[in-house]
Amino acid sequence: MSQVKVAVVGYGNVGRGVIASLKNNPDMELVCVVSRSPERVKKEFSAVPVFHVSEAEKAFERSGAQVAILCGGSKDDLPKFGPQMAKLINTVDSFDNHIHIPDYFAAMDKTAKEHGHVSVISTGWDPGIFSLERTLAGAFLPGSRAYGFYGLGPAGGLSMGHSDALRTIPGVKDARQYTHAIPSAVKKVQNGENPDFAPGDMHTRECFVVLEEGADKVAVTKAIMEMPGYFAPYDTTVNFITQEELNTKYAGFPHDGLVAAAGVTGKGNPARIEYRCVWGSNPEATANVLVAHARAAARLAAEKRTGAFTILDIPASYFTTKSHDELLAHWM
Amino acid sequence: MSQVKVAVVGYGNVGRGVIASLKNNPDMELVCVVSRSPERVKKEFSAVPVFHVSEAEKAFERSGAQVAILCGGSKDDLPKFGPQMAKLINTVDSFDNHIHIPDYFAAMDKTAKEHGHVSVISTGWDPGIFSLERTLAGAFLPGSRAYGFYGLGPAGGLSMGHSDALRTIPGVKDARQYTHAIPSAVKKVQNGENPDFAPGDMHTRECFVVLEEGADKVAVTKAIMEMPGYFAPYDTTVNFITQEELNTKYAGFPHDGLVAAAGVTGKGNPARIEYRCVWGSNPEATANVLVAHARAAARLAAEKRTGAFTILDIPASYFTTKSHDELLAHWM
Repeated sequence: MSQVKVAVVGYGNVGRGVIASLKNNPDMELVCVVSRSPERVKKEFSAVPVFHVSEAEKAFERSGAQVAILCGGSKDDLPKFGPQMAKLINTVDSFDNHIHIPDYFAAMDKTAKEHGHVSVISTGWDPGIFSLERTLAGAFLPGSRAYGFYGLGPAGGLSMGHSDALRTIPGVKDARQYTHAIPSAVKKVQNGENPDFAPGDMHTRECFVVLEEGADKVAVTKAIMEMPGYFAPYDTTVNFITQEELNTKYAGFPHDGLVAAAGVTGKGNPARIEYRCVWGSNPEATANVLVAHARAAARLAAEKRTGAFTILDIPASYFTTKSHDELLAHWM
Repeated sequence: MSQVKVAVVGYGNVGRGVIASLKNNPDMELVCVVSRSPERVKKEFSAVPVFHVSEAEKAFERSGAQVAILCGGSKDDLPKFGPQMAKLINTVDSFDNHIHIPDYFAAMDKTAKEHGHVSVISTGWDPGIFSLERTLAGAFLPGSRAYGFYGLGPAGGLSMGHSDALRTIPGVKDARQYTHAIPSAVKKVQNGENPDFAPGDMHTRECFVVLEEGADKVAVTKAIMEMPGYFAPYDTTVNFITQEELNTKYAGFPHDGLVAAAGVTGKGNPARIEYRCVWGSNPEATANVLVAHARAAARLAAEKRTGAFTILDIPASYFTTKSHDELLAHWM
């Protein structure tokens, strides 16, 4: 197939990851970057033209972009500029605010259909690969429940959302939060017990916090422990460290996860399905999945399909560079 | 969606597994069985009409079957009666002779298209789920290689093909072969070494053999060890046991496997993807996957699609009973 021309919208960790990932996918070509702060981006990156987000239409036209990978946040960015971009071009994004996915799908579907575009939403590894694996486990092992665990390795998984939440607390200068799966909970699922878990039964939360000068440790700890949704339901540990320690020991974005389902087949024989992934860099992992979906978006668009899609709506063969003949001969 | 009416063609281990699996899928209904030995089947099973294979057309018409799940062997049965059935009805099968998949696909595709049917071929857990996971790992982790291991649990995995091969040796009355993954080989893959393996580097083979009276242990052992393809390239162990021991200790069909791929993302951060499954009953596992594909075949047929498909050509949403709204709200 011919080269797919890709625009990257948003130059944060995921945007940088997408640019790096495109280099590892020879059938894909970065043609422009669109950002709210093009001058800041240009200082760091000048391989392709960088445009202000208000000039997105011009950026896509001039660069000949076929697909825009939207690398903004799910809270404020994507609900607003997702549909704006879907008017202009085929899009792929990693909208991950689970409870708002139906609304976001509807908005993107309407706009993409009206403007003759494809919009692949909510992809990455969760939502994304994990959504696919949950759905397949449910289909292939009816009666089982699929569970998601995060942070099974010794370091745990860095949660950006929870790190951001810590930074909103008065007195917190900087912070990072690592999620840990509770091994006994994983074991229960693997044993086929299909347990009912409360949120705090599956994971613990470990916080590394740098205080503002003169901030009150006790008050900050209390604010963390009592934060509803984020920390209150969990066994949470708070460690106060220096900025230097945070920057050196906790600088990366490691994450990992497991989808596990166990049940029985046919006449009651035990069966277990697990999908495991371990990422040195969470944003680069998300970026790799986004790029494979940009390939799929270009193919769907070439078939004159329009509207919103998720990973569940797209055959696996659309994600790969392999031809149908190659897949039959070597990948089945 | 309305009930999918299913015919089962072939009443061996997989056929029995499919009948058991259909009971666990309330949207699917068994409507007839087609067999080469209907009288033998009727002795064991009388819940639905049983027809001789020469009466398949009548069987499908009378029962109103929409999809036939073909449960025959890949060596002799499917190449012959697969295309015959694809003339009459939508089909799903587990053709697993990897090197002949392109030819089988072509034959089924031609016949299914000519007769306006859908034929989903080569599904189960390998080929099938593992094909999907290999393809996704390749797409999401470009540059990595996906490896398949079998028999990682302590019991190993029972290989029907290798058990059959043992039974062809003069002097062997009965036999079962268990495949074991070599742990150090799995470790190499998980470490991201992307090693070049010869077949014997990944698995060992453990044989449990019952001799005919008066057969020569040494000659049988030599015949096993030197069997090209099946045993010669492997570290093979041969255990002679009694029929009673075989029947009691080695009666089931356990199997398990792992698809593993490791590489790097973006700027060189390590990444690892693994899919693991553990089955108390291999034929029941295959049956569950076949039944989910029968659901997909019915949907593809309802969309007026025709021709051959593999798991790589079908979106995940086609395998599940969940509606699009349910998937968006609860499975993403």
